[in-house]
Amino acid sequence: MSSAPIFLKKHADRRLRAGHLWIYSNEIDTVKSPLNSFTAGQAVSVHTADGKTIGTGYINPHSLICVRIISRDPQISLNRSLLVHRLNIALSLRERLFKKPYYRLVFGEGDYLSGLIVDRFNDVLVVQITTAGMEQVKQEIIEALDKVLQPRAIVLRNDTNSRSLEGLNNYVEVALGELPEKVLLEENGVKFHVPVLEGQKTGWFYDHRQNRAELSRYVQGLRVLDVFSYCGAWGIQAAVAGASDVLCVDSSERALQWLTANAELNQVSERVKTAQGDAFEVLRFLRQNEEKFDVIILDPPAFIKRRKDQKAGEQAYHRINQMATQLLSREGILVSASCSLHLARETLVEIVRATGRHIDRHVQILGQGHQAVDHPIHPAIPETDYLKALFCRILPSG
Amino acid sequence: MSSAPIFLKKHADRRLRAGHLWIYSNEIDTVKSPLNSFTAGQAVSVHTADGKTIGTGYINPHSLICVRIISRDPQISLNRSLLVHRLNIALSLRERLFKKPYYRLVFGEGDYLSGLIVDRFNDVLVVQITTAGMEQVKQEIIEALDKVLQPRAIVLRNDTNSRSLEGLNNYVEVALGELPEKVLLEENGVKFHVPVLEGQKTGWFYDHRQNRAELSRYVQGLRVLDVFSYCGAWGIQAAVAGASDVLCVDSSERALQWLTANAELNQVSERVKTAQGDAFEVLRFLRQNEEKFDVIILDPPAFIKRRKDQKAGEQAYHRINQMATQLLSREGILVSASCSLHLARETLVEIVRATGRHIDRHVQILGQGHQAVDHPIHPAIPETDYLKALFCRILPSG
Repeated sequence: MSSAPIFLKKHADRRLRAGHLWIYSNEIDTVKSPLNSFTAGQAVSVHTADGKTIGTGYINPHSLICVRIISRDPQISLNRSLLVHRLNIALSLRERLFKKPYYRLVFGEGDYLSGLIVDRFNDVLVVQITTAGMEQVKQEIIEALDKVLQPRAIVLRNDTNSRSLEGLNNYVEVALGELPEKVLLEENGVKFHVPVLEGQKTGWFYDHRQNRAELSRYVQGLRVLDVFSYCGAWGIQAAVAGASDVLCVDSSERALQWLTANAELNQVSERVKTAQGDAFEVLRFLRQNEEKFDVIILDPPAFIKRRKDQKAGEQAYHRINQMATQLLSREGILVSASCSLHLARETLVEIVRATGRHIDRHVQILGQGHQAVDHPIHPAIPETDYLKALFCRILPSG
Repeated sequence: MSSAPIFLKKHADRRLRAGHLWIYSNEIDTVKSPLNSFTAGQAVSVHTADGKTIGTGYINPHSLICVRIISRDPQISLNRSLLVHRLNIALSLRERLFKKPYYRLVFGEGDYLSGLIVDRFNDVLVVQITTAGMEQVKQEIIEALDKVLQPRAIVLRNDTNSRSLEGLNNYVEVALGELPEKVLLEENGVKFHVPVLEGQKTGWFYDHRQNRAELSRYVQGLRVLDVFSYCGAWGIQAAVAGASDVLCVDSSERALQWLTANAELNQVSERVKTAQGDAFEVLRFLRQNEEKFDVIILDPPAFIKRRKDQKAGEQAYHRINQMATQLLSREGILVSASCSLHLARETLVEIVRATGRHIDRHVQILGQGHQAVDHPIHPAIPETDYLKALFCRILPSG
């Protein structure tokens, strides 16, 4: 497949030379390379203002992130052979780090595959394609995954909101093989059935794996509250680690059904209860009832999805942290997480600081968690570093 | 002990109200409270410009950080009873998190005891006092530690450079009991003898405990280089975790003697070698000899001790990271650490990014480490968050 040339404006190559893989539409010289001459997902070769080749990639003329670089080598294009090569590099990392085949196999830019996410649940792969360029090679992706891993089934969870930014429609399909009735995964030695077709994103959030492992140090014999529990990743792991009593809160009845089944699977049903409802309302109700918890986990969905949500989102983080802290028993532990790219780590630290001051408590940050090792960060792309978790001890002042 | 009043300038209480515990000399109203009326280490009560009480603390009129707050409660002063109370709160955290008595028991501001560090090696405590205010209550500290823990020995390692900023002289003494011939600790299941009298700081750096635990995932069957090894915390743990071959580099012959003994203690002598010399020179020598390593740990001393060292220090980090990366084998792992408070985490990320670009390699940041849980961060005091470790995979580009 031949690639069309695209030319950058003067100095627009600086970020790219530093290693970034994105080109914004306003960085393209649209006189030399008019955007309307390209189709969404088309392969391009990228050139600087003075004609030097920077690399190859794919374009979406309708998207703010207009070009995504695939390689700095002008000979390399996004085809089945490159996909197999990159998948093998990604796989070698995971096989080195994990004894069992449950992990994120491909994390977009972090694995040099912009626009592609693959989660592995042993012999079931769940794929998420987020760009027009990757959608173009959908068939090659499936073939490459089949060649590298011979999975029993490949599911396309192409139903994320971000696809609309690329002009892509949403759909979910089993693209290869047959999906077993139940898909199992193991995380930190705890088993879960994961709703790969109907759950959030790919069905599971491997990114907090290490933070959940860290949680297990804190819960022995204690009362735990898991807010925004989804299907129980935090709460059930807390119960297995010895929590005396876990209350899991989620707004989705369906998620709590999965959670209840997962509690049974791990034989901790007696110590895991659920409360369905809006997290803010449930926390208010618990406070009215003077309930107290020794450990509280806050792992909310992204309250700041876009820049325009910044202020309201930060306020929501403030509010939920404050409400949770008021439910903590003496010397309680707050695990405050955020997956909002737009919430800086320092802002989350500031939120727990202000939370403590507001109710005159001392706050100690004992641990700072990040996304797990199967979500590699690209050091030139700050956007690949999104997950935060703060482990805090809240003390009486004085 | 009665405390002398000190008055702040207008608006100088803002940072304190946010929770910070330090008052700089230029924030004090020296008309109302002339600095020369105070003695170093004297107890003070702190008042805003309009006379409201903010809390109690101690002063050093000769120091840039002039006052350190001890409590927001005007009734509380720094005495044996407060020390016992705060030690018990600090101990309860460590006993909750650690099965064995090897940890930092007191981390200054993080444990609301500005100017005091205590490391615990079972029944031996090593204390470091860094301020005149704490030096004033030295005897009370020893009594309080004795009351809370009944240690076999308490060592005062009052020989850090920062003491000179407080006008304190340096000394090392056994302040209570008798020091056993050998002091043992266990970290991540690995045993070490620790040079509490002659080693760096308190003799050991517990702050990297979790990062060293993380290292063990990466080393199985591989060749490891431990640069700035000191007495072997990283290198020997790598060997115990299954590294085929570990080379430890340090400039101190004495540290390497301790390291060799520690390798014997863990029965990994055959797989642990040492090279004495300046790290930069040893790395250059290794490159000349075309040596390659699968995993390289860089845990240098603070290259940026003060603001004025910023530029030269950053250059040193750049240089050492670049030299190390050139010694890595294909798909090698670089663990790049920094304990310089003045080196921002983002700057270290930038350094590994630039290192990769410089030699045309891809860099993936797999993990981001922080100081261990027994070094709690005070969320209003950014100075308490100092330790960084990046786990990077370095790939061929293309």
